[in-house]
Amino acid sequence: MRHLVRQTIRFSDADPAGIAFYPRIFDHLHEAFEDFFDNCSGTTYAKVLGEERIGFPAVHATAEFLKPLRHGDVIDVEITVVELGQTSFRCRYRVLRDREICATASCTTAVVHLDGLKPVNIPERFRKFLEEHHEVVA
Amino acid sequence: MRHLVRQTIRFSDADPAGIAFYPRIFDHLHEAFEDFFDNCSGTTYAKVLGEERIGFPAVHATAEFLKPLRHGDVIDVEITVVELGQTSFRCRYRVLRDREICATASCTTAVVHLDGLKPVNIPERFRKFLEEHHEVVA
Amino acid sequence: MRHLVRQTIRFSDADPAGIAFYPRIFDHLHEAFEDFFDNCSGTTYAKVLGEERIGFPAVHATAEFLKPLRHGDVIDVEITVVELGQTSFRCRYRVLRDREICATASCTTAVVHLDGLKPVNIPERFRKFLEEHHEVVA
Amino acid sequence: MRHLVRQTIRFSDADPAGIAFYPRIFDHLHEAFEDFFDNCSGTTYAKVLGEERIGFPAVHATAEFLKPLRHGDVIDVEITVVELGQTSFRCRYRVLRDREICATASCTTAVVHLDGLKPVNIPERFRKFLEEHHEVVA
Repeated sequence: MRHLVRQTIRFSDADPAGIAFYPRIFDHLHEAFEDFFDNCSGTTYAKVLGEERIGFPAVHATAEFLKPLRHGDVIDVEITVVELGQTSFRCRYRVLRDREICATASCTTAVVHLDGLKPVNIPERFRKFLEEHHEVVA
Repeated sequence: MRHLVRQTIRFSDADPAGIAFYPRIFDHLHEAFEDFFDNCSGTTYAKVLGEERIGFPAVHATAEFLKPLRHGDVIDVEITVVELGQTSFRCRYRVLRDREICATASCTTAVVHLDGLKPVNIPERFRKFLEEHHEVVA
Repeated sequence: MRHLVRQTIRFSDADPAGIAFYPRIFDHLHEAFEDFFDNCSGTTYAKVLGEERIGFPAVHATAEFLKPLRHGDVIDVEITVVELGQTSFRCRYRVLRDREICATASCTTAVVHLDGLKPVNIPERFRKFLEEHHEVVA
Repeated sequence: MRHLVRQTIRFSDADPAGIAFYPRIFDHLHEAFEDFFDNCSGTTYAKVLGEERIGFPAVHATAEFLKPLRHGDVIDVEITVVELGQTSFRCRYRVLRDREICATASCTTAVVHLDGLKPVNIPERFRKFLEEHHEVVA
């Protein structure tokens, strides 16, 4: 199952060349990741961090920017889970504009307790919705 | 030859977990990239874009975040050039804090004319300083 | 008439103190301003800039931050137009969370042609929707 | 006494119109505020927050943007303290480019304990350097 989040490329995302500055694309991916939690985990990303004190620092991120994204572009960010370990997982992102893939990316996040940043096992209720969005990569 | 840029992790880089949010690390790498141009190219990054209308959109970026960076950390961003093509090049970054590598990254940038975003050959005077910072990767 | 835009305080908006960093609030106000154009002007903010080459640089901005906003907060940004000049206008913003006012702000924007940044008269079709959202301030 | 911080308008500060997006100016002012602490307080802004758990949330901010700032501009941000209360103070900023004032701003910050955000008296050692930078406004 793929989780889809619709977003808009904002004025503040665009650089003097008129196209989205690439660190801003990673911001968009993270917003999609937050929405994935909010919509699928049974709780919210803010509560997981603020109340459960569990965090998701990125340990690896990679992206290919295939087509320039411009201010005003409406994009769909598609998320799947391509690796699901004991204390980390990797999400894959596709950024589409009118069904054209403009960027692909993946981000591996550790799962840690925020006090001390020590790895913790992915809680079962998160494992469930992450598995539901598992994508087998050829 | 390696180009070194000293930076500070800012309050605005740090997230509620107290560590640098990973898209902000890419912002720091880009600042180092701008300084690399300003210090080594014989011109400035702003003039290259604003006057020559040549731009450097990222086509691929990847990073490993090995150690969390915190608000107040002083870091050295080390840049080398690991690939130098006709119309694109790839820089490699190492982010050090007290000589400890906290992140490594690389970013491939196309070289384009800003009006139309068509690839252009890397101008000779840029090729020169990029070659001077070439690093052979084993 | 008031224009309302619902937003969420994002992870990236929040600082190590767990509350929204104040420049990020101005980002939220600008997003609401963009949506105001997209929803009410008959065109989009991106087209006005990209095609008509008309821009809206801020010349004055002021804000009072009455209550801290936290990651995960859902806010309603309310926009009205409190001054409507020949070549500039001033919007007033109220940021509400569950009907509690958390911030008030105003921003005066010049209306300029993007090539040269010279002031231009507010086009009639913009004047119309701006007038419809006029608020008389006591 | 005025505290001066030299900065550069970055690629990421500039918008599709080629000029600094106004929320980014507030980011620059905050960086100058951090440097003011780092250079004058006898400690660092990061330690005050991270170790002493004292924070400085903005309660009021205002700015006039007199001249557009562009990517590559070198600016001097001048800070003085124009009000010094029991649990809050107000800084005044002037942004200069080649001695021309491009923006003026002021920001009132509360002084709070980060756990609970309750106001605290400005510690004596901070009061000292703030007083040294006091500017009487006519």
